[in-house]
Amino acid sequence: MLERGAIAIDWGTTSFRAYRLNSAGEPIEERKAPLGIATVPPGGFADVLQQQVGDWLDQDRTVPVIMAGMVGSRNGWVEAPYAALPADPTSLKKSLMPVTRPDGGQAFIVPGLCGVIDGMGEVMRGEETLAMGLDVADGMVLTPGTHPKWITLEAGLITRFKTFLTGEFFAVLTEHSLLGRLAEEPKSEAQEWEGFGKGLAMAKDPAGITHAAFAARSDVLLGRMAGGEVRAYLSGVLIGTEILGAKQSLGLPKRLFLNASGQKAAFYEHALAAEGVTVTLVDSDVVLLHGLKRILSA
Amino acid sequence: MLERGAIAIDWGTTSFRAYRLNSAGEPIEERKAPLGIATVPPGGFADVLQQQVGDWLDQDRTVPVIMAGMVGSRNGWVEAPYAALPADPTSLKKSLMPVTRPDGGQAFIVPGLCGVIDGMGEVMRGEETLAMGLDVADGMVLTPGTHPKWITLEAGLITRFKTFLTGEFFAVLTEHSLLGRLAEEPKSEAQEWEGFGKGLAMAKDPAGITHAAFAARSDVLLGRMAGGEVRAYLSGVLIGTEILGAKQSLGLPKRLFLNASGQKAAFYEHALAAEGVTVTLVDSDVVLLHGLKRILSA
Repeated sequence: MLERGAIAIDWGTTSFRAYRLNSAGEPIEERKAPLGIATVPPGGFADVLQQQVGDWLDQDRTVPVIMAGMVGSRNGWVEAPYAALPADPTSLKKSLMPVTRPDGGQAFIVPGLCGVIDGMGEVMRGEETLAMGLDVADGMVLTPGTHPKWITLEAGLITRFKTFLTGEFFAVLTEHSLLGRLAEEPKSEAQEWEGFGKGLAMAKDPAGITHAAFAARSDVLLGRMAGGEVRAYLSGVLIGTEILGAKQSLGLPKRLFLNASGQKAAFYEHALAAEGVTVTLVDSDVVLLHGLKRILSA
Repeated sequence: MLERGAIAIDWGTTSFRAYRLNSAGEPIEERKAPLGIATVPPGGFADVLQQQVGDWLDQDRTVPVIMAGMVGSRNGWVEAPYAALPADPTSLKKSLMPVTRPDGGQAFIVPGLCGVIDGMGEVMRGEETLAMGLDVADGMVLTPGTHPKWITLEAGLITRFKTFLTGEFFAVLTEHSLLGRLAEEPKSEAQEWEGFGKGLAMAKDPAGITHAAFAARSDVLLGRMAGGEVRAYLSGVLIGTEILGAKQSLGLPKRLFLNASGQKAAFYEHALAAEGVTVTLVDSDVVLLHGLKRILSA
């Protein structure tokens, strides 16, 4: 499959991670650096690649180099046109975007995906590679974060996906709204779960999320909610709203792959369990690397 | 009713407005200053009152002085404990909070209202006086702004209300999220209405508001939405979500009183018409003054 081995790179907004693969596709060396695309000046991408993996390239100039993530965005090395839905490793391979390395060879960027889904545009960059790395025929992948994506796989193809502003909503509300000014450090883990539970329940309130957000302020003013519950309450409202929206627009499976860890994973796992969904946690580094290999070998 | 006349004051976060009323309740003099409570240092409220209306007080030290708004909040002259629901001019008069004027006389602050409605706390300060000023038995009042309130009046009593974070959501999203960075000045009024209409439709999307917000970004990236539509689109999503929430939690009347002007009034009027609701625009200065008189005369 990878007769000459390969160099596989995950190049996102905040970090750069490269793997040197042998002909069996096994990672034999790994490099990681805080050189996400946000830190690279325009025109500086080839130099960063050379600095990070130049010695690997020197050993074999014909080795294929594949890259996924925001490196293919407007602020990356070059804007790789989005590929279309439905997508699988074969269609993604056909849409790989070549760029020229400093040593004159080529490197290939996995394109993101776009589509018009239920009447509105949708885009992703990087998550398509992660989804391919799961190597499942049918299933659903959820990638929480600033802009969580819910991705549907059918017969090995990415067929639909939806993005939510959950993480960014949380950030702007806690950093810039009056709710952030009411929030205090949680006194205990129990207090956080108390707040999260209240928020999750309010996500189903018929008055909606903008009322649910304000209600935290009133509850704090009236002594009905502790300042330490506020941030977790907002997480509950926003995660609950996201899950409800996914349920109503995509439908919920019995099981889904969850690309999260720590408290974020615990919050999602708890909220999904309440909807009868069990989760399989994924190791995103391993899965993304597998996705890059699948695309290269397709 | 007001044998000695009265001094009626609307003292909010950003402005101070005082009326000198004759015994018929007619305003015979008016003073307005940018001396909202946010500009007054702790302990400085009596001095501001003296500066603004000291000459009126000198003419009759027994004249009743009544004040409404954030002057009764934690950051105001004194924190006036919230009165309870249901409320009318008589119950509000019983809960007036006295403070001592520099000349030794008293002034009275209209308390806000609080309640636990559908399981969550609710608070208001100032809107209760506006609602009383409408002098209607049964109806609904909507006060758009940073924190819009929907207030239900039954048999002359304020019985229920709900607050939404609409205006503040709009501010934090347009000032601090990636959606703000995509937004451009609208090219025309037609473009604004185009964006508003799209947002209003998306407010009913089953995937919910956090998806609807992100979808604007995708649509701009894919060339399906102009930068000049983005802000109005967000207004449409947020106002639509608020109206839907009010419909589901309070029910919509055939007609409601709308305390807004300009584009905000036009947006709400359009969105409400789509739900079969016609609006009566209110002149908030006139109505608030009437509310103060009703409470004083109760």
